[in-house]
Amino acid sequence: MDSQEQSLIQSFMRRSRELIDLKSVLEILTWDQETMMPSRAGPFRARQFSALSALYHQKLTSPDLGETLERLSTEELGLWPQAAVREMRREHEKAVKLPEELVRELAETTSLAYGAWVEARQKSDFASFSPWLEKVLKLKQEEARCLQFSDSLYEALLDHYEPGMTVGRLDELFAVIRPKLTSLLQQILSASKQPDRDLLKGKFPAAQQEAFGRDVLTAMGFQWDAGRLDRSPHPFCSGLSPLDVRITTRYSEEDFCSSLFGMIHEGGHALYEQGLDPEHYGSLACDGISLGIHESQSRLWENQIARSRAFWDHWFPRLLQTFPGQLDHVSLEDFVHAINRVEASLIRVEADEVSYGLHVILRYELEKQMVEGDLKVQDLEEAWNTSMKEYLEVVPSNSAEGVLQDVHWSMGGFGYFPTYLLGNLYGAQIFHQVGEELPDLEESIAAGNLIPLREWLGQQIHGKGKTVGAEELIEQISGKPLNSDYFLDYLKNKFTPLYGLS
Amino acid sequence: MDSQEQSLIQSFMRRSRELIDLKSVLEILTWDQETMMPSRAGPFRARQFSALSALYHQKLTSPDLGETLERLSTEELGLWPQAAVREMRREHEKAVKLPEELVRELAETTSLAYGAWVEARQKSDFASFSPWLEKVLKLKQEEARCLQFSDSLYEALLDHYEPGMTVGRLDELFAVIRPKLTSLLQQILSASKQPDRDLLKGKFPAAQQEAFGRDVLTAMGFQWDAGRLDRSPHPFCSGLSPLDVRITTRYSEEDFCSSLFGMIHEGGHALYEQGLDPEHYGSLACDGISLGIHESQSRLWENQIARSRAFWDHWFPRLLQTFPGQLDHVSLEDFVHAINRVEASLIRVEADEVSYGLHVILRYELEKQMVEGDLKVQDLEEAWNTSMKEYLEVVPSNSAEGVLQDVHWSMGGFGYFPTYLLGNLYGAQIFHQVGEELPDLEESIAAGNLIPLREWLGQQIHGKGKTVGAEELIEQISGKPLNSDYFLDYLKNKFTPLYGLS
Repeated sequence: MDSQEQSLIQSFMRRSRELIDLKSVLEILTWDQETMMPSRAGPFRARQFSALSALYHQKLTSPDLGETLERLSTEELGLWPQAAVREMRREHEKAVKLPEELVRELAETTSLAYGAWVEARQKSDFASFSPWLEKVLKLKQEEARCLQFSDSLYEALLDHYEPGMTVGRLDELFAVIRPKLTSLLQQILSASKQPDRDLLKGKFPAAQQEAFGRDVLTAMGFQWDAGRLDRSPHPFCSGLSPLDVRITTRYSEEDFCSSLFGMIHEGGHALYEQGLDPEHYGSLACDGISLGIHESQSRLWENQIARSRAFWDHWFPRLLQTFPGQLDHVSLEDFVHAINRVEASLIRVEADEVSYGLHVILRYELEKQMVEGDLKVQDLEEAWNTSMKEYLEVVPSNSAEGVLQDVHWSMGGFGYFPTYLLGNLYGAQIFHQVGEELPDLEESIAAGNLIPLREWLGQQIHGKGKTVGAEELIEQISGKPLNSDYFLDYLKNKFTPLYGLS
Repeated sequence: MDSQEQSLIQSFMRRSRELIDLKSVLEILTWDQETMMPSRAGPFRARQFSALSALYHQKLTSPDLGETLERLSTEELGLWPQAAVREMRREHEKAVKLPEELVRELAETTSLAYGAWVEARQKSDFASFSPWLEKVLKLKQEEARCLQFSDSLYEALLDHYEPGMTVGRLDELFAVIRPKLTSLLQQILSASKQPDRDLLKGKFPAAQQEAFGRDVLTAMGFQWDAGRLDRSPHPFCSGLSPLDVRITTRYSEEDFCSSLFGMIHEGGHALYEQGLDPEHYGSLACDGISLGIHESQSRLWENQIARSRAFWDHWFPRLLQTFPGQLDHVSLEDFVHAINRVEASLIRVEADEVSYGLHVILRYELEKQMVEGDLKVQDLEEAWNTSMKEYLEVVPSNSAEGVLQDVHWSMGGFGYFPTYLLGNLYGAQIFHQVGEELPDLEESIAAGNLIPLREWLGQQIHGKGKTVGAEELIEQISGKPLNSDYFLDYLKNKFTPLYGLS
């Protein structure tokens, strides 16, 4: 590498670090808004957010940066710098296509729409939210148009979250999955062996739920000196840097499951973020590969691990101690069946592993139609309820447990939902390989030792950052391209004995 | 106003809003660092902070902004826009006078000097800190020279914190105050009626301290939907906007006073910040007038109100209920005397209302001499100990409880200390007028109603922002220029009966 190349790379890395620093500050603003910010501060926070977003956008779209990227993209730079340049180029090229005014308007509108969603959900009043959703949708359609991505507006938005994924591929995958999930769901619902609904009922003080959750997170390897756990209305994980990873949860004192599995889920995301190499902070390659791969980590910990019999061999006695008198009458066997209870329910985040995919496919179809202009916001709630009836045979009795339940659309997150189901697919395919490579895993988990799994995931996935793509990673790990068989086999193998299916 | 003027103002306000938004984000980063950030995240946070600071500095020093300000400063704009322009011009002109190299060196040196101070204080070793103090001092002298402010280098630094205040004025005020405080202190120390040292000892759980503090803050009119209370190692108040004002405290379970009066003190600052007019957020005029005026609010609530007999008429029974069995043996009278105990102590932040001023004057004199080149850092500790003996008749037995006790100098905060005593003077002069205008105030406070006071302060001070200067405000309120009589009379009237002085 000659000295001109070197100074070019140095100048690029300087810009890259500044951009990542600003991005991280934007993340802090978001985290703070959802966990800490006083309720009346919203409008000024929106302004602060939009001022900073605009600056980020200006820096990202600088023609100087574009030139540097162009020159560097023909160089042989080695794995990490090459990925840093590739990812920055991707961001830069997208950003230059978006007018500053649109970016500013989107930031401000989504921040306000989020507030409107919170209020509308509280009041279960879709009508008060729908003007905001219309505004957000219109701006996102405009964004998709500006990106000139493909024939599909939706695909342009999907690409933000799952680079390389196409609508065609999703349609194909989901077309296989949907009928199989529906059929498995029907089999399970009509099985004679059903878990007891009331088994997990009790009084579970939030403080003890939190303490138990913290113990599990610690066992998973969550690093508390590089992270936090707080409360927020909608649980999330925010990676401000590999040394500052924050997860949130919410507690219901009648139901410890929702918070516990939520914490483990976000903990799976957090391990990914904490597993990124801090040496590379300041490079866009120091990030999760895609939302789908990210979700594979959270799902794997939540479902394959924390809903397994082996996991509770170790943790069940501790759970009984944590909530004296609440679960003493429950056997471990019945407990494991109960936490894996399958039902046709209304709320996605509380859905079981079988019906969850149907919730996602429903949202994917609706948002795709909205973005493509085939479904109006005013007709959304009816379409939602109709699909719920068709896929899950249940109908929400109000907006809060229906179309208003998720935060994503208020924040402009069209194209986000499918990554949840992709996460299940990736997760099952990865976990299959874990089983091949760590034959003692089940014993280790049953003994409360989760670290071998964390280390394997760290080496095979987390530490690689974005030096590989999603498809490439899955092929590296399993030797095969992504397919839905692993996921469907996993469900069948798990639920057949649980429910005594034939 | 013609359309050209109007568009000039609009362009100015756009820049102003952006700068304030960025400033506010910097405040969030600081608040987060002190209250929430995981311990290992420090180095990345420093980078995020410095990236954003650099952007702020670039925007503030932009020649375009300078031109706009120059053109607007000759226009008749009305009270608020005029103040917005004046304050921004002040900031801009200071910023452009400072070479980037000096700003960078100051940031770096003070950051390292702060670390050296922490370590030196732990080891009580002034010698290891003094080379750092010399470096910081030299850079601050250079800064003062660059600002080309007046004959006095110190005055240039003082002006950062207390605009309009002069060294001549401070010398004059402090020359009157010092002997009178010394004499009052001597009278009190030799009085036969002394409060019982051990009266306030007990076990005070942090959760109950917090609950009690929150009740008091609520009664003061702190708006919880526009603010928060958290914990941090050093208590502070952070006004991110008038609708987002955050205070912090720390709890000692053996001593409820330190946290309670600390919360009320920060609460006084917070009421000022919440009392700013949100309509004007985005203008530099929407801010506290000076550190001295800000401190007048915190001191007034902490001392004139919360250390008064009337205040405890209402709150003492509640305090007893909050900490059952801890203070049952204490009479209200003895309690009020105990929370007003005067002593010649070594530590400024623990000093009472009488001796506090002497701590400040000592620091003012020493730092002024250092900045003007009349006192060498190597002679500072001896000078400190000599003054302590002279003013307070106590001598530190080591550097930690002497010259190393305060953080300010390590961070380059020369000129900050006098604003603490000015706060007392402003506060007493303002409170005297409160007494004239709200004759029923004492009864109202004794009945637990603090709102009339808050409203008066809001109207007379908070809502005005920086549309007036400190001197002007004091004249507006009391009809007289700032003088020390009000403060000295207040102390005499309060402590004469408490200590049975003649």
